[in-house]
Amino acid sequence: MSKQAGLTVLGQDPACCAPMVREPLGEEAAAELSRMFKALSDPVRLRLLSLIASHEGGEACVCDLTGPFDVSQPTISHHLKVLREAGLVGSERRGTWVYYWVLPAALDRLSGLLQAPAAPATA
Amino acid sequence: MSKQAGLTVLGQDPACCAPMVREPLGEEAAAELSRMFKALSDPVRLRLLSLIASHEGGEACVCDLTGPFDVSQPTISHHLKVLREAGLVGSERRGTWVYYWVLPAALDRLSGLLQAPAAPATA
Repeated sequence: MSKQAGLTVLGQDPACCAPMVREPLGEEAAAELSRMFKALSDPVRLRLLSLIASHEGGEACVCDLTGPFDVSQPTISHHLKVLREAGLVGSERRGTWVYYWVLPAALDRLSGLLQAPAAPATA
Repeated sequence: MSKQAGLTVLGQDPACCAPMVREPLGEEAAAELSRMFKALSDPVRLRLLSLIASHEGGEACVCDLTGPFDVSQPTISHHLKVLREAGLVGSERRGTWVYYWVLPAALDRLSGLLQAPAAPATA
């Protein structure tokens, strides 16, 4: 069994997360991935994503997400929409409030893509 | 020994790469990280980074990096400057050409930050 096969995580498609250091990214993949990174290129959106992901139970009500920021509620809503459209979070309205959670497959994909080159073999 | 300790990579500070799903990102970290993600938010820059990282020997001459793109050489140089200023690549002039390589610690940091939440424990 190859080392790669030994590292495969159950239920995760290895092809989805090939590190960009292994082979050059194609144009289509780069276009799609750059949109996801663009969603992460704003400090308020990064903090929102982190707040959602680290919230108890793995999801957060929009009512939990406005307090920590010095920006208006419509601005928060705009940033949440950008994160949702980039495929990084899911959302659902329940009664008065909209709830958000991170989509682990999207984070896995970006995390896998950015895996650094292994240290050069010395043997 | 905890599972986490067992996963620590030699010479890598685990504190540098705490997943954002574990605790909310602070303002300063978010500002710094958002600049790195901004550098990745352009498809040409993503492909350049991937070309450099996957190049034989882990580094690429600027002369290897213009061919694959439908953009001018000054545009490529601009994108390389953005990647360098974001701390994602290093560079050095040797004779006529400038050579580029990825900085693995920067990729590790972003990759670790984006690690998805573990599946909920069922036991």
